[in-house]
Amino acid sequence: MDKIKNIGVFTSGGDAPGMNAAIRSVVRTALHYDIQVTGIMKGFEGLITGDFMPMNSKSVANIIQRGGTILKTGRSDAFLTKEGRQIAYDNLVRNNIDALVAIGGEGTFKGANIFAKEFNVPIVGMPGTIDNDLIGTDHTIGYDTATNTVINAVDKIRDTAESHDRLFIVEVMGRDSGLIALRSGIGVGAEAILIPESKTDVEVLFNTLSSGRKDKASKIIIVAEGEEIGGFEIAELVKEKFPNYDTRLSILGHIQRGGRPSCADRVLASRLGVAAVEALLNGKKCMMVGLMNQNVVYTHFDNAIKHLSEADPNLLKIVRILS
Amino acid sequence: MDKIKNIGVFTSGGDAPGMNAAIRSVVRTALHYDIQVTGIMKGFEGLITGDFMPMNSKSVANIIQRGGTILKTGRSDAFLTKEGRQIAYDNLVRNNIDALVAIGGEGTFKGANIFAKEFNVPIVGMPGTIDNDLIGTDHTIGYDTATNTVINAVDKIRDTAESHDRLFIVEVMGRDSGLIALRSGIGVGAEAILIPESKTDVEVLFNTLSSGRKDKASKIIIVAEGEEIGGFEIAELVKEKFPNYDTRLSILGHIQRGGRPSCADRVLASRLGVAAVEALLNGKKCMMVGLMNQNVVYTHFDNAIKHLSEADPNLLKIVRILS
Amino acid sequence: MDKIKNIGVFTSGGDAPGMNAAIRSVVRTALHYDIQVTGIMKGFEGLITGDFMPMNSKSVANIIQRGGTILKTGRSDAFLTKEGRQIAYDNLVRNNIDALVAIGGEGTFKGANIFAKEFNVPIVGMPGTIDNDLIGTDHTIGYDTATNTVINAVDKIRDTAESHDRLFIVEVMGRDSGLIALRSGIGVGAEAILIPESKTDVEVLFNTLSSGRKDKASKIIIVAEGEEIGGFEIAELVKEKFPNYDTRLSILGHIQRGGRPSCADRVLASRLGVAAVEALLNGKKCMMVGLMNQNVVYTHFDNAIKHLSEADPNLLKIVRILS
Amino acid sequence: MDKIKNIGVFTSGGDAPGMNAAIRSVVRTALHYDIQVTGIMKGFEGLITGDFMPMNSKSVANIIQRGGTILKTGRSDAFLTKEGRQIAYDNLVRNNIDALVAIGGEGTFKGANIFAKEFNVPIVGMPGTIDNDLIGTDHTIGYDTATNTVINAVDKIRDTAESHDRLFIVEVMGRDSGLIALRSGIGVGAEAILIPESKTDVEVLFNTLSSGRKDKASKIIIVAEGEEIGGFEIAELVKEKFPNYDTRLSILGHIQRGGRPSCADRVLASRLGVAAVEALLNGKKCMMVGLMNQNVVYTHFDNAIKHLSEADPNLLKIVRILS
Repeated sequence: MDKIKNIGVFTSGGDAPGMNAAIRSVVRTALHYDIQVTGIMKGFEGLITGDFMPMNSKSVANIIQRGGTILKTGRSDAFLTKEGRQIAYDNLVRNNIDALVAIGGEGTFKGANIFAKEFNVPIVGMPGTIDNDLIGTDHTIGYDTATNTVINAVDKIRDTAESHDRLFIVEVMGRDSGLIALRSGIGVGAEAILIPESKTDVEVLFNTLSSGRKDKASKIIIVAEGEEIGGFEIAELVKEKFPNYDTRLSILGHIQRGGRPSCADRVLASRLGVAAVEALLNGKKCMMVGLMNQNVVYTHFDNAIKHLSEADPNLLKIVRILS
Repeated sequence: MDKIKNIGVFTSGGDAPGMNAAIRSVVRTALHYDIQVTGIMKGFEGLITGDFMPMNSKSVANIIQRGGTILKTGRSDAFLTKEGRQIAYDNLVRNNIDALVAIGGEGTFKGANIFAKEFNVPIVGMPGTIDNDLIGTDHTIGYDTATNTVINAVDKIRDTAESHDRLFIVEVMGRDSGLIALRSGIGVGAEAILIPESKTDVEVLFNTLSSGRKDKASKIIIVAEGEEIGGFEIAELVKEKFPNYDTRLSILGHIQRGGRPSCADRVLASRLGVAAVEALLNGKKCMMVGLMNQNVVYTHFDNAIKHLSEADPNLLKIVRILS
Repeated sequence: MDKIKNIGVFTSGGDAPGMNAAIRSVVRTALHYDIQVTGIMKGFEGLITGDFMPMNSKSVANIIQRGGTILKTGRSDAFLTKEGRQIAYDNLVRNNIDALVAIGGEGTFKGANIFAKEFNVPIVGMPGTIDNDLIGTDHTIGYDTATNTVINAVDKIRDTAESHDRLFIVEVMGRDSGLIALRSGIGVGAEAILIPESKTDVEVLFNTLSSGRKDKASKIIIVAEGEEIGGFEIAELVKEKFPNYDTRLSILGHIQRGGRPSCADRVLASRLGVAAVEALLNGKKCMMVGLMNQNVVYTHFDNAIKHLSEADPNLLKIVRILS
Repeated sequence: MDKIKNIGVFTSGGDAPGMNAAIRSVVRTALHYDIQVTGIMKGFEGLITGDFMPMNSKSVANIIQRGGTILKTGRSDAFLTKEGRQIAYDNLVRNNIDALVAIGGEGTFKGANIFAKEFNVPIVGMPGTIDNDLIGTDHTIGYDTATNTVINAVDKIRDTAESHDRLFIVEVMGRDSGLIALRSGIGVGAEAILIPESKTDVEVLFNTLSSGRKDKASKIIIVAEGEEIGGFEIAELVKEKFPNYDTRLSILGHIQRGGRPSCADRVLASRLGVAAVEALLNGKKCMMVGLMNQNVVYTHFDNAIKHLSEADPNLLKIVRILS
């Protein structure tokens, strides 16, 4: 392989806090190694439309603290087709971009994997998603911030719950993964946490509510959004079963994606940005860089899939003991 | 009237940030004037159940910064009956409570007004509600904090809207009053604000969206919750009319009631707590204390009703100019 | 006077949260009235160096929530000279800028006043300073945010004070004005507040500390920074007089200037930006626009001076009652 | 050893966010296993004065989100003497407390170690300190929150630095350990970080400042407080060497200890509280529980000392590349 001279960087999929810190790190690291770097707008869509912009050190000044992504993100139907990807490749060649850093989640890496193999383009991925649902890294960029956003919101809801002796069903993000629900639920001292992984029987929740401490009138139930049953359905079931409770539903929604990234997410994004560029320089391709036990780990895109493991039984036990 | 020796204080209606600061101020001021003070739990309900607790300076230590209300709040069906109010009065007599401070909104003052007239109990009210919908005070306790909570949440949503070029419909609280929507909408730079007072024709919104700047792909529309049409309905209408927009709905919900009060709300609550106790000592009754143009103002409970005035046209003009 | 065709806008003096919201409002309002608008960098210095940039609607997109000022600010020795101001005027003429909006404090308006009179340039001022020390407006842009920043910081310090039974001397900004100290001191429930206006005898503080509630071991004293005596000196005096207290000093410093503006500051900046441009269009000059009791008020630069009035005795009374 | 029937819990040393979450977890876990639990006030001092209070589930309700420690903390000269410790032991016997959980740092564990060996009292420690300077755990309780507090403060300072083109020297906590400085320095995108571990030659800093990007006028230097040289000294040296810079000093101080704990700190405290009680039930003594790579790890008090290792060279490299 020839020496890399120009790295393209883009963000794809749902936005996550720390994506800007990741972009900054990729840009500054590339420049540090005397490599040009090009920002690609709106993920795969920008590859196809050729929405490129050369980036210098100043392009990423004062963005480490900002939520969202200055490169924007989105979905691309065209990239799902061979013709679309051919156009994308031609755009890379025309702009002398000879390697890519892709920041996103499972879908991003799947698309990147196909593209990399079709056109032999070196691509390294960085895990940017609030869901923390990827193997190959202890945490994804954005997860820590999202859990802090959730507990800040639920702390506010707790004020109202305490003042009115209410039961609140709070739905948090995580369609296939309950990791946001599990950590933030422990963080707010929830009475119960319902997540996809534990296939929670609603009867278990009912038992918890029935046997709860009598001196505790306010309650918080954290529910991960789900395909089959979400906060709305749970709230209806609880209202029917426990008509004496003053039960309310709160769907936190999109506030969980935005906001200034936490220190942990900024540091993680900064480290992985350096690792991603250095991985490309070392000839790696089709790899996601992650951080496990403080070490940089490389996971092939073939394996960089969501982990749908059972929830950590240690954490579930803690919920039961402490509520 | 005999000299007041024991003031009861309670919070009623929806909780609002700053209610604890208000309680603290009432308690400390009463003690300053060598008057006993008794906390009444859960609003009118606690009057009937006799859920009283004597309060000293330490009872209200370290609560000025807390959301919710340590005295809890709630509704009382029993207090709507003459029999219920008789029990409440008997409880006051039995506990030597000879005056009340009622912290809440319109409903609170209506109930207090009836009770005060029936039994000749001196009652002074303090405006505690996030909705800012009372005459007789520039701001209600909790309004400033709620608007800050809204803009903090919408700033996060804006990150996602910018990253995805989305249009977000954000529903905020204010069933009969669009003041939260109006101020926070200006605060976040919303493209449009829909409030009950302006009886907004949805066509006006459509015109705004049609004529918006072409270089601005992300948009925020703030909608006050409403009897007739709320965020959900607006979102459906926009999706139908503008299928090309990537339109999302976010209902902020109960996070708007909780949280640590802002400095302005703490100062307002502190001032009005002093004013409320001093008003009782000066023989005032059936009055809400408010602050208008930095002066303490007294409004008779007969008049302390919601103001359903037209929205300030100056503010509506600003939305149009700046979006 | 000819019709205004191009308004220059700049920020000067210490930065304040909400300056960006003010710039955005000036730019958008000018464009709304089909007037060009030019950003002048670094205050008066940029007038002299000709550091100008044309601004459009997009120039001020997504800045309403940001602290600091995108136009930067600074001091200018050259502008103190007639020669410097002549260069500045020539730059305005060369760039067809025929009116100015100056965002800053007393010093800014003094400089603007001289320049406006020398060269007959229409200038309108907007009050942007955290100190709230200007006549002609209830609040200056930045003051509300600064007080919230202070209480957030002192709430954290209170955690430590409570845990260790300590006395904390906290110095806040406000060299000539104790308004930040006074409001934030009430907001945090300070035991005492020392401000320049009240010419506080340290003996009064000593009496407060001597006579304080015995059941309250932790204490917070808020001190406005001052020419003669600041936090450091107060802390030394307290340590000497009360050796049994575990006394600590915290100087909050520059965190008070930055940060995302509060909703109140964003709304104030938005309103005054509209008012400033409209004032120029209506032929006003050498005027600061302010907001008093929700009405736009115009104060001539000759009078737009710091108010060094006595502190509001109502607020000082509240501190004594509630601590 | 007889079965444990009553566990005493106390906090000692500097307070840290998450200590309340730790107390809550210890109390709830003990109750879960049908063991009594007694709160000991003010650390070792309370052991000697017998300042004990029985705790139930409600004692720790609604504290998971609060900074500081409801059990208070402090130093004890008396506990340094054999006589003092004898009194402490007698108090435990008199109150039927047969095991202890000690939450604090190195000094806490040293004291606990001596006491445990002298009187054969089972004691388990939990790492509660913002400094993250203990071996046997990836993170100490409070560290994550402290780094978030630092970056929030420095983000505000950056606003002012950017607006004025200033250089800010920001001193953060960490007398013997630069871990707060290192992580938060990366988190804010600092131009340089000075920490005790790297024995930084001031000349290196000077070189960094001399060779910095010319297009970047504002700069942030993070300095860990230190025995030999702290923020003040560095600021003086920089002012002398670079008189053209507008250099300012900000000492963040005690705000770094307080505040609502982050989600990560609440989860860590919750997990370690369960682990601490279970360790006692399993017969462990003189052990600190920690979490390493998501596993509970036990470190004997003999080894639970501060780690004064060299700073992670990977992190130092990142600072150089990204600034």
